[in-house]
Amino acid sequence: MITAPIRASLLCFNPYNKCFSSVSSIQRFSFFSRAKSTALATGSAGLKLCFGDLCSNSQISGGVKVGAEFQFDRRSMSISSSNPSPVADQLLMENGVQPTELLIAVNDEYGGVIIEMEEPMDSEVFRSSLSASLSQWRKEGKRGVWIKLPIEHANLVEPAVKEGFWYHHAEPKYLMLVHWLPKTENTLPANASHRVGICAFVMNDEREVLVVQENAGKFKGTGVWKFPTGVIEQGEDVSLGAVREVKEETGIDTEFVEVLAFRQNHKSFFEKSDLFFVCMLRPLSFDIQKQESEIEDAKWMPVDEFTAQPFWQREGLPKHIVDVCLAKMDKGYAGFAPTPTITSSSNQSSYMYMNCQCLNQPSSSRI
Amino acid sequence: MITAPIRASLLCFNPYNKCFSSVSSIQRFSFFSRAKSTALATGSAGLKLCFGDLCSNSQISGGVKVGAEFQFDRRSMSISSSNPSPVADQLLMENGVQPTELLIAVNDEYGGVIIEMEEPMDSEVFRSSLSASLSQWRKEGKRGVWIKLPIEHANLVEPAVKEGFWYHHAEPKYLMLVHWLPKTENTLPANASHRVGICAFVMNDEREVLVVQENAGKFKGTGVWKFPTGVIEQGEDVSLGAVREVKEETGIDTEFVEVLAFRQNHKSFFEKSDLFFVCMLRPLSFDIQKQESEIEDAKWMPVDEFTAQPFWQREGLPKHIVDVCLAKMDKGYAGFAPTPTITSSSNQSSYMYMNCQCLNQPSSSRI
Repeated sequence: MITAPIRASLLCFNPYNKCFSSVSSIQRFSFFSRAKSTALATGSAGLKLCFGDLCSNSQISGGVKVGAEFQFDRRSMSISSSNPSPVADQLLMENGVQPTELLIAVNDEYGGVIIEMEEPMDSEVFRSSLSASLSQWRKEGKRGVWIKLPIEHANLVEPAVKEGFWYHHAEPKYLMLVHWLPKTENTLPANASHRVGICAFVMNDEREVLVVQENAGKFKGTGVWKFPTGVIEQGEDVSLGAVREVKEETGIDTEFVEVLAFRQNHKSFFEKSDLFFVCMLRPLSFDIQKQESEIEDAKWMPVDEFTAQPFWQREGLPKHIVDVCLAKMDKGYAGFAPTPTITSSSNQSSYMYMNCQCLNQPSSSRI
Repeated sequence: MITAPIRASLLCFNPYNKCFSSVSSIQRFSFFSRAKSTALATGSAGLKLCFGDLCSNSQISGGVKVGAEFQFDRRSMSISSSNPSPVADQLLMENGVQPTELLIAVNDEYGGVIIEMEEPMDSEVFRSSLSASLSQWRKEGKRGVWIKLPIEHANLVEPAVKEGFWYHHAEPKYLMLVHWLPKTENTLPANASHRVGICAFVMNDEREVLVVQENAGKFKGTGVWKFPTGVIEQGEDVSLGAVREVKEETGIDTEFVEVLAFRQNHKSFFEKSDLFFVCMLRPLSFDIQKQESEIEDAKWMPVDEFTAQPFWQREGLPKHIVDVCLAKMDKGYAGFAPTPTITSSSNQSSYMYMNCQCLNQPSSSRI
């Protein structure tokens, strides 16, 4: 059923064919040339490709890869990448002459579809195919429509926006756009809203704390000695990130013990919030080698001298940090220790942070 | 000094002037017409505007508004919007004929600049101005260059990428691009990496827990009774978000008590991670009114009946959640209670979550 019209359309893609009348048509041909060879070589495709007997091989998943999760609510999302949208097999006629291929998509579990553009495409061809695809998906009652655009296809951002898409999130190498087709309020999953930071309380047996002075930022030139701090990297555990930051800034090896407290702050970075975890770590080495790029100086400082600094006596976050750290050392303060656990919907391992002192968990189950 | 060349260039923007030879020039004129009137009306500008005596009035901040924060490390960032970049006053000559205005920018505290595009602009004019601006900023030793592009200016995404910019983050109405000019490793601030979710443990005096069945998502049709869950909204406190979710899903009013534990999971949504907080709330009302859109059913269920469900006996996150909730009710488990605090670098209020039982904080200081 598909082969005939596709073969007919392929004739029009002959570059020597007089039927070429626009730049768009020429780019359309070059797109198909690239897409075909890539499809044959790698099995990836940005558009539905169909060349006679290759039809059955061109059911290519464009699904976005996501990991398992514990369900927050319906706005959470996972993809059934093995379930390509049936619309990928369909063709529409544009002005009764040029066929407009629908964008290949995969269904998600919430009645929506996901398009992952892997091949370059002329922006006019893309907008035409996207418009036709949206009409088809509206007829089918689809809900959220996602387009993952690698940065090398930035030419497709404007046409997507013109078709009603808005931005959902972005990473250095791609932009995720989304469109909600129903007239009902959208139930699309939330974007990441928080950055995660840590502050590392490390004390040796002489009641000396590991402190640094930074050579940039708000503390530069203030003379304030502070705990090592840092931002957790994408995909990094809070506990492992704290150990990494201490090692990077001071050269000290540590073992993570507990999260003693955390602070949530809003609009700390553009519209985003942050969660700042006060962590206790046990030192495993003691010879300091400071990080040249970010640290002006680092040393072991008697805790009384540290807490005597005016900055750390200020009401608010600084004093709270000192209070929980001293309570941990002197009053048996119980924080949250990381306990290895398994995500319910998969075998992915993660850490549950909880008050293991109260739960009387065996120490062997701790990190 | 600036007035003369600007007046000269304005002559070329007369639409009846024969010197027009390209669409770009015409759009350039229309841009200046819009920009000028907008500048006069609202004081906002995407490009440096300078019309004789208006020069002194056109020192307009394009700074991105950010809130106060506790410093994680040098990658943290805040903007001195009162400090416009001097380059905004400069003009370069393009082919010795058409002046190329440099993009107006404000300096950040880390040796970089920020451009906030508020006016429409032709993409060719933008790329030309951006290219000239980058050359100038390289000479000045600038580091990170930020461009905040409202979605209505999506036509400027491709030229920015062609000039070497990449995506930093995106929200529904804007895309933030960034470029690192030095040859050294970039120390740009991290993007938000986590979504924050909550699970609400609410028990009445009859040891009945507030439970729901969802009408969508992984739990749909499973018959599993679960605690209310949800995603914290942008700018929302964990404690207030938990109270909101319980109210939305069940109609029950609650008072937040403690975070009992939290779980960090990775790749839960595309490349993003999530932090899932197990919260205890005290019920203030008891008549359930379930949310029609997301909740199939809601009720008070005896806790023994709840924990007897096979799902909640599974090793991993479900059993951990049950363990900490039962320990809270029967073993005096101490979680982290939110304590109002003040951000050190401002008077912005936020919550510090810590083990107040160990600290013997007066209950009045709790939320």
